[in-house]
Amino acid sequence: MLTEVLNQIGDLYPEPMVKAQKHLDSLIKPPGSLGVLEEMAVKLAGITGELAPNLSRKTVVVIAGDHGITEHGVSVAPVEVTAQMTRCFLEGIAGINVLSRHTGVEVKVVDMGVRAELNLPGLIVKKVRSGTSDFTQGPAMTREEALQAIMAGVDVAQDLIAQGSKVLITGDMGIGNTTPSAAILAVLMDIPVEQAVGRGTGIKAEILQKKIEVIKKGLRINQPDKNDAVDVLAKVGGFEIGGLAGLILGAAARRVPVVIDGFISSAAAMLAVSLNSKTKNFLFPSHLSDEPGHKLMMEYLGLTPYLHLKMRLGEGTGGVFGAFFLEAATKVMREMGSFASSEVSALLEERMA
Amino acid sequence: MLTEVLNQIGDLYPEPMVKAQKHLDSLIKPPGSLGVLEEMAVKLAGITGELAPNLSRKTVVVIAGDHGITEHGVSVAPVEVTAQMTRCFLEGIAGINVLSRHTGVEVKVVDMGVRAELNLPGLIVKKVRSGTSDFTQGPAMTREEALQAIMAGVDVAQDLIAQGSKVLITGDMGIGNTTPSAAILAVLMDIPVEQAVGRGTGIKAEILQKKIEVIKKGLRINQPDKNDAVDVLAKVGGFEIGGLAGLILGAAARRVPVVIDGFISSAAAMLAVSLNSKTKNFLFPSHLSDEPGHKLMMEYLGLTPYLHLKMRLGEGTGGVFGAFFLEAATKVMREMGSFASSEVSALLEERMA
Repeated sequence: MLTEVLNQIGDLYPEPMVKAQKHLDSLIKPPGSLGVLEEMAVKLAGITGELAPNLSRKTVVVIAGDHGITEHGVSVAPVEVTAQMTRCFLEGIAGINVLSRHTGVEVKVVDMGVRAELNLPGLIVKKVRSGTSDFTQGPAMTREEALQAIMAGVDVAQDLIAQGSKVLITGDMGIGNTTPSAAILAVLMDIPVEQAVGRGTGIKAEILQKKIEVIKKGLRINQPDKNDAVDVLAKVGGFEIGGLAGLILGAAARRVPVVIDGFISSAAAMLAVSLNSKTKNFLFPSHLSDEPGHKLMMEYLGLTPYLHLKMRLGEGTGGVFGAFFLEAATKVMREMGSFASSEVSALLEERMA
Repeated sequence: MLTEVLNQIGDLYPEPMVKAQKHLDSLIKPPGSLGVLEEMAVKLAGITGELAPNLSRKTVVVIAGDHGITEHGVSVAPVEVTAQMTRCFLEGIAGINVLSRHTGVEVKVVDMGVRAELNLPGLIVKKVRSGTSDFTQGPAMTREEALQAIMAGVDVAQDLIAQGSKVLITGDMGIGNTTPSAAILAVLMDIPVEQAVGRGTGIKAEILQKKIEVIKKGLRINQPDKNDAVDVLAKVGGFEIGGLAGLILGAAARRVPVVIDGFISSAAAMLAVSLNSKTKNFLFPSHLSDEPGHKLMMEYLGLTPYLHLKMRLGEGTGGVFGAFFLEAATKVMREMGSFASSEVSALLEERMA
């Protein structure tokens, strides 16, 4: 079934991209002067086949899960916070709710593996298990669970698209989840663990050392196969990370653009791209996380984040701004005047050509 | 009169900043995890004295002017484009109109020195003269004209504030105006002209060389005094640049935050800061222009632009996004839940402290 999804992920349409570039160059501005917004418009044309797709329905999907490795104290935050924050997302009082309202994005919340039993109105329940296993003692999850998490993410994406979402944004919640994300980064890019880790929510030097040791032990014991993303997810990943990888693949398979948030979302995107590199065609960056390894992840994904906000909250809080910029690019295409339609000197267009 | 305005520019209020930081740390997120948004919230509290000022009324002021040095062919665009684009701003079809609608910003257009006579509904006319003089032959304007441009900008700011604007955003239109802006940068930072110039709307290498020569000649002939910003403006500046410097000073004097757009706006901000360094207290950056000298300008202003969009259109197109982020910061302050008001573990707050 995953193979079927992977096979549906295609190339960008070249002709609409040429048309989009031509349209951009006909608008009353020096060619290229809207920079990244122009790049977005061209890529969106390649994804959707439309010059100015309507992106007003934007959805951030915050997927939550817990992690066995929290036993080692790799995070400052108590593990209960995953469940508590999940409740806050549904109450509309978390950072992602505030910023989603501001940017015109709807918030969907998915329980893919929270330790507590949550029975909350509005929660999409796709629980694989109540938290992963401690990956210093064996795999975080079985291969079947990894596939289940991915396919659950695919389902969420495709349900939301069926309901009218035109852009999906990745969001995450899971105390301790910078640890599996750093592990995935270390494996897929084959870099030392020291380069992949960071201080997450704000751990001190000694806990950072502990985090490095936990990851090193996890990699030594489980020996994840870097050429098999499902194996990497199963051995050192997390349920929400698998779900986000699936969300990305599900959107890509339906030719829907996906905006990638920060460190955890990018680990998921790396898994998705590792499963089918054409997934890159449907990805858009947003912010550069304050977590140092995020830069390497963006390089792996071939994306250049343009929001340098020093944010490190997760939840999709950088991603919703990214979707706001994508929508801006479509409005440039739809609403700006052209040299032909305005009185702006055709001489300008000629000289610029 | 200018002295009076300069004397009104004050310090940030320290107590509201402390309160703002305390409030931010009580919200359900790791401390500091909203990065630049948190810095904005604290600075806004220092400016306005309020924890969560209402910034819904945001105004971009696009000031237009023409330049004598266009005689030398330093820009690709014909000089008529300044007037033509000014018309487009009022018709609502330019880039700034599209992006202002998207970000919830109102657009005001000021003629401070367009060569053509414009008589357009909605245009704010503060014309000093129909274009500056060629500064390779003498000063671009007289000292009196420079002061007139600045004071006209002050008036525009204070009128808009009286009408309810809570944030002002700088925007510019003026074919050739990267040339005076680069000249101002070279003088105020005392750097070689070669480091201050760039390709503007997209000139080729030989025209870039011409642009360097024009600026060098202008500086040699006029000998602007780097310790006298009005002299610098008069000798190698532009009417819209003077107007924007005045707009910034007028807002700062009324303790209203100002978002700085790209290269031309930043040259104006440098003049304003040079007149009174406390102006910095009221400035917010937005995007980093693709024009290379912009980075140096931001250093001079002590600002770190966080939008890396490779834009170089001017008009305020980067600035309006900046105002959108400022407003986001105020909503974080107003709408996010706190540890005390939610069920999120107080343990998290404690451990984070």
